[in-house]
Amino acid sequence: MLENFIIALDWLGLTIFSITGALVASRKRMDIVGFALLGSVTGIGGGTIRDVLLGIQPIFWIKQPLYVLTCVAVSCATFFFAHILQHRYRYLLWLDAVGLALFAITGAGNAYAHGTASTISVAMGIATATFGGIIRDILGGESPIILRQEIYITAALVGATVFVGLMDTGASQDVAVALGFIAALALRVAGLHWGLSLPRYQPKAGTQQD
Amino acid sequence: MLENFIIALDWLGLTIFSITGALVASRKRMDIVGFALLGSVTGIGGGTIRDVLLGIQPIFWIKQPLYVLTCVAVSCATFFFAHILQHRYRYLLWLDAVGLALFAITGAGNAYAHGTASTISVAMGIATATFGGIIRDILGGESPIILRQEIYITAALVGATVFVGLMDTGASQDVAVALGFIAALALRVAGLHWGLSLPRYQPKAGTQQD
Amino acid sequence: MLENFIIALDWLGLTIFSITGALVASRKRMDIVGFALLGSVTGIGGGTIRDVLLGIQPIFWIKQPLYVLTCVAVSCATFFFAHILQHRYRYLLWLDAVGLALFAITGAGNAYAHGTASTISVAMGIATATFGGIIRDILGGESPIILRQEIYITAALVGATVFVGLMDTGASQDVAVALGFIAALALRVAGLHWGLSLPRYQPKAGTQQD
Repeated sequence: MLENFIIALDWLGLTIFSITGALVASRKRMDIVGFALLGSVTGIGGGTIRDVLLGIQPIFWIKQPLYVLTCVAVSCATFFFAHILQHRYRYLLWLDAVGLALFAITGAGNAYAHGTASTISVAMGIATATFGGIIRDILGGESPIILRQEIYITAALVGATVFVGLMDTGASQDVAVALGFIAALALRVAGLHWGLSLPRYQPKAGTQQD
Repeated sequence: MLENFIIALDWLGLTIFSITGALVASRKRMDIVGFALLGSVTGIGGGTIRDVLLGIQPIFWIKQPLYVLTCVAVSCATFFFAHILQHRYRYLLWLDAVGLALFAITGAGNAYAHGTASTISVAMGIATATFGGIIRDILGGESPIILRQEIYITAALVGATVFVGLMDTGASQDVAVALGFIAALALRVAGLHWGLSLPRYQPKAGTQQD
Repeated sequence: MLENFIIALDWLGLTIFSITGALVASRKRMDIVGFALLGSVTGIGGGTIRDVLLGIQPIFWIKQPLYVLTCVAVSCATFFFAHILQHRYRYLLWLDAVGLALFAITGAGNAYAHGTASTISVAMGIATATFGGIIRDILGGESPIILRQEIYITAALVGATVFVGLMDTGASQDVAVALGFIAALALRVAGLHWGLSLPRYQPKAGTQQD
């Protein structure tokens, strides 16, 4: 039952991340096959790493090829319609925020349903949420979103922690999913909109920068 | 039987990709151990990802260490003989084309022989064919071939699709392998030689490029 | 028994590599969560790839979450204390050298204890020792240490070979671990301190550089 709910959200996250991958492809003026590859890798990348690390076999998109076909379809659609958007990078960032929040919960939820320890479930939420975007940025030759100044990994961490914490204390899964998702999205959106960030590392004044 | 044939072609693809990895090492003026590492990772990288995703254990080069030793030997030979070549990057591109075509078929064939769904077998062909080169370019600090303007991923896609489609319709495996390989190689070579490419994404005229 | 000894050294290597990951985070002025992610990925990255390739499930830090918590704790401590260091990149290089030597032995030792062939055990030593740093440098946007001019991969290769060779000839494991570690560390330190390196690839004089 938890798994079914998580699966539905996983589809949504995967679709959204595919669009962000396709938007990176559009910034690099790739052809439609490049869109399909970059969109699919971004959509299924985080969950693939999660399944490989947890030793879940067959991994989700090999068990259910419709995942990959969805990514391909969404990416190809983006090829034809992305030119309508005026500010593609801004859309990319906002969609990435929703995908991040969804995958933080579904990544943690999948691990949790698999019987994994709480700390590791949180780690899996972070890995699932961030690695699709990391692979997208590396393959697409973009500066990694993970290095941006605003709150990013923190949002995935907080969302996954809220979800796992509530599950551990016996809250209903609907509540755990909803609050975890809202926490992650709110933090990331706050980071994007107001430029909020945690204090960053400050080298000692006068230190030789090497 | 399909597996035996595929294994023979796999050796060839692995040798060729090792040379391309060693050629990237030569462009970076690495030492002989760097050649061995970059050559080996390029040679076995795509198949490793395929085996990990399919959950095949032990993965092919752990089961048969001769694969790795071959990569190391070929890479070391390249260290001593690459200086003979006048235009190393051109050789790299052409060898990469042959390796791409071989691995598109063997990657799809391995998955197919493993009983994987047709769509996923095609995806495995693409992954096996492209990921060795992607890892090579990232580790070697080269601009990824995957982002080049000519037909690249498309060649792997078409080759793997022809192979899987023919197998599905009951063609003999020799025919499926031969036609799939020719389709992939012909497309990539056409891309390299005539600069053929699919239409690339065009942003809307006057769109703010962000 | 070999495994217990290896595990102790693994903790040490993991802690040291976490610090190097956190030092890269400090060079990029990341926030404390960025430190935790980059430190953890660097600390557990090499061993994760080793376990995934060997098909060991659950992988070490999922079986024992304390590994990840240690990485997080060490990385966070680095956030607060790294500014004390005058020459952070120099510390990063020296710590990386110790981690490299430790992981070359523990990576090979884990594979060896798992019953893997000698050549593959050496390959696992190299992979475990180098991939944490490779992932760190790619995620942190640094020029990969692996491409530096001094002896690096060679140190891991020699250390792992000494260790596996001694184990194969029936030496006591203490001796094998100690000599392997010393060999790897001495080589890397010699490379760093005196700029020692193997002969690098030399293109033919007058060759067109393409």
